[in-house]
Amino acid sequence: MPVFLSHDDADFDAQFEALLHMKRESDADVDAVVADIIADVRNRGDAAVLELTAKFDRMELGADQLAFTSEEMDAAIAQVPEAERAALELAASRIRAYHERQLPQDARWTDEAGAELGWRWSAVDAAGLYVPGGLASYPSSVLMNAIPAQVAGVRRLCICAPTPDGLANPLVLLAARLSGVDTVYRIGGAQAVAAMAYGTQTIQRVDKITGPGNAFVAAAKRRVFGQVGIDMIAGPSEILVIADANNDPDWIAVDLLSQAEHDESAQSILITDDAGFGQAVAAAVDARLQTLERAHIAGPSWRDFGAVVVVRDMAQAVELSDRIAPEHLEIACDDAEGIAAKVRHAGAIFIGAWTPEAIGDYIGGPNHVLPTARSARFSSGLSVLDFMKRTTLARMTPEALAAIGPAAETLAISESLEAHGLSVRARLDRLNTEA
Amino acid sequence: MPVFLSHDDADFDAQFEALLHMKRESDADVDAVVADIIADVRNRGDAAVLELTAKFDRMELGADQLAFTSEEMDAAIAQVPEAERAALELAASRIRAYHERQLPQDARWTDEAGAELGWRWSAVDAAGLYVPGGLASYPSSVLMNAIPAQVAGVRRLCICAPTPDGLANPLVLLAARLSGVDTVYRIGGAQAVAAMAYGTQTIQRVDKITGPGNAFVAAAKRRVFGQVGIDMIAGPSEILVIADANNDPDWIAVDLLSQAEHDESAQSILITDDAGFGQAVAAAVDARLQTLERAHIAGPSWRDFGAVVVVRDMAQAVELSDRIAPEHLEIACDDAEGIAAKVRHAGAIFIGAWTPEAIGDYIGGPNHVLPTARSARFSSGLSVLDFMKRTTLARMTPEALAAIGPAAETLAISESLEAHGLSVRARLDRLNTEA
Repeated sequence: MPVFLSHDDADFDAQFEALLHMKRESDADVDAVVADIIADVRNRGDAAVLELTAKFDRMELGADQLAFTSEEMDAAIAQVPEAERAALELAASRIRAYHERQLPQDARWTDEAGAELGWRWSAVDAAGLYVPGGLASYPSSVLMNAIPAQVAGVRRLCICAPTPDGLANPLVLLAARLSGVDTVYRIGGAQAVAAMAYGTQTIQRVDKITGPGNAFVAAAKRRVFGQVGIDMIAGPSEILVIADANNDPDWIAVDLLSQAEHDESAQSILITDDAGFGQAVAAAVDARLQTLERAHIAGPSWRDFGAVVVVRDMAQAVELSDRIAPEHLEIACDDAEGIAAKVRHAGAIFIGAWTPEAIGDYIGGPNHVLPTARSARFSSGLSVLDFMKRTTLARMTPEALAAIGPAAETLAISESLEAHGLSVRARLDRLNTEA
Repeated sequence: MPVFLSHDDADFDAQFEALLHMKRESDADVDAVVADIIADVRNRGDAAVLELTAKFDRMELGADQLAFTSEEMDAAIAQVPEAERAALELAASRIRAYHERQLPQDARWTDEAGAELGWRWSAVDAAGLYVPGGLASYPSSVLMNAIPAQVAGVRRLCICAPTPDGLANPLVLLAARLSGVDTVYRIGGAQAVAAMAYGTQTIQRVDKITGPGNAFVAAAKRRVFGQVGIDMIAGPSEILVIADANNDPDWIAVDLLSQAEHDESAQSILITDDAGFGQAVAAAVDARLQTLERAHIAGPSWRDFGAVVVVRDMAQAVELSDRIAPEHLEIACDDAEGIAAKVRHAGAIFIGAWTPEAIGDYIGGPNHVLPTARSARFSSGLSVLDFMKRTTLARMTPEALAAIGPAAETLAISESLEAHGLSVRARLDRLNTEA
């Protein structure tokens, strides 16, 4: 049974806090294992990667088999049914159109002191995308990672996608080709992250690593952060639906299940201002679970982490939603737009009952790599900006330096940084001499 | 003696690689200590913070003394000499003007399928700024961290600034007040980072932590990343100057020393196309070191990590510069603007001989918190965006869902995520029933 809370429960605040801090991931200390794997890959390169791949993915490869050949990709891609190819192409084109609007502007101006200031954006040289898991790997995640990188102008793009027991998903390879990926490596885990961060004889190192993964991948990303850029440390997925009674309970039920079916650790929460509607949705979830293919995953997720929260009114719904800072927020209410405008912390908002979250997973256009575990309080979904960086620009004229240099010298001296002051003073003295 | 390399040395490439990967920080394993400190602060809150402050900063405080009172700040600020106050105010206003231009735009549009898409930026609720050390703490760093947060619209801003032996820098407190900081805590180290990330009885937790610090602070930031956002893991500072022979060697020498004086681990590199000029700059550095106040710091930095690299031409200078990906890049050449335009990886560029890097440290306007240790390959200096996050927006009409929903359903089924497909199908069926 999922948790049922109501705003008029005596211990509502305590219960809501407990919901907020519910532990959904095991504490298994993978960090030591991951540290060893990274050190091994740094020391032994390909040899370590090949051994670890044999061990974890049961694949005996040579170094020359780490990457899919062009022929292997062609052969796999040829198997993709036409309907799936067309759907993936439509998704790619919509995701590209959305992300092209994120390209940032350079700037350059001269201020009243005569100082020329500005900035310039540029792409990282090389990015590596992690795509979890074998046959169950998601082609949509390839598009969501690779297309922003491609739009940003990244020169070299590679994917690491483990193929346990040699099983590869042809759609993943098609998605890689549709989004300009140069090389797909059939490796995974912490060893793949280490190889992309430090390079091996065969695998060129990259500057930025993005993409979801299991606890080992997350721990490896945390460890290599600084050596390379990373997007975020992802946790299990979650959805919050705010819905009033003016909805079909079954629509809301399948929306909640569409997160629950990802992972037993996923979390689906309904906030509603109508207790009866909340009960109806819970009943509809139970009904759907009778036949759902992934009921063995969605069922435990809903039972262990699901929640129905009955609120006084929609103002309270917004307040609680901001405390949750959900990865996905679906708003199925009469005034969906007005409620959306009041939300401060959410990775992605799906406005109105005709916008199921699944649209955002595949084809809407916005990215589906989003901040989990309340990190929407301080971070954003993946975007073109994750594959770019900004260089600030400053150019002084002698006049500008004369105008603002003395203040810099004063501050340098106050911070006991004499050479800082001298670097300004040497130039100001020249001006005085020349005048 | 710093390293001298010339493009026509037989082993130039190997020597340059060695320069690139020079180890400037000790390997001291602070991570275990930091893990214990963080656990202690999470478990015991204020009590742990107070004990650790007594131990490391030799300050016996009560919980009610963790923050400076308004009266304490007033009294300290009253001591600031007028020239320093004026310089700090000019710096604050110029930094604010620069960062106000970084405020990002929201977007909303309807595409050809009838889908309404967009995004909206919002500020984090609360940010905590770490300001290292006592009397030597830098008021400029307060401005550079706090003003972007203030411009972003952060509602609550606090500073942690240790005051070893009770020594506080009045300019730091003035800088805090000029940039809208609500509370200044007199604590530092990993305990300050832990307190800001998890909160204590007295210290409210924040959503984002920024600012430089020693190895303990850096390790603590890496550990709390995910619980809160962080800006970057900062290492020792560095400067690269590209200069032709058409410069006063003394100007370039003080510019190099202005980084070297920060830290014995700082690194200053000159790239020039004129070997004689390189020698002249090295001689000018030696001359300045005879009298420089911080020669005991700048001398070892220049001796151990300094370098003069003589290149074939400015094209090679740009190529090597991009491999270094310097935090600060000063370009003092005839065609400074043309060279700057070719650079791909740098935190900040200072264009032309009238733009000493120190201008950027204090008063130019751009931020001085910049990516170190080659991380300009993938990251940017601190900006308003570090204190904001983006929520993506999507709203489908029934018509839009009819247009793009079937492709989402196809992809969901291909990924074996039935409930995803059902959430679209339930709505499409309603449309078909109604039609």
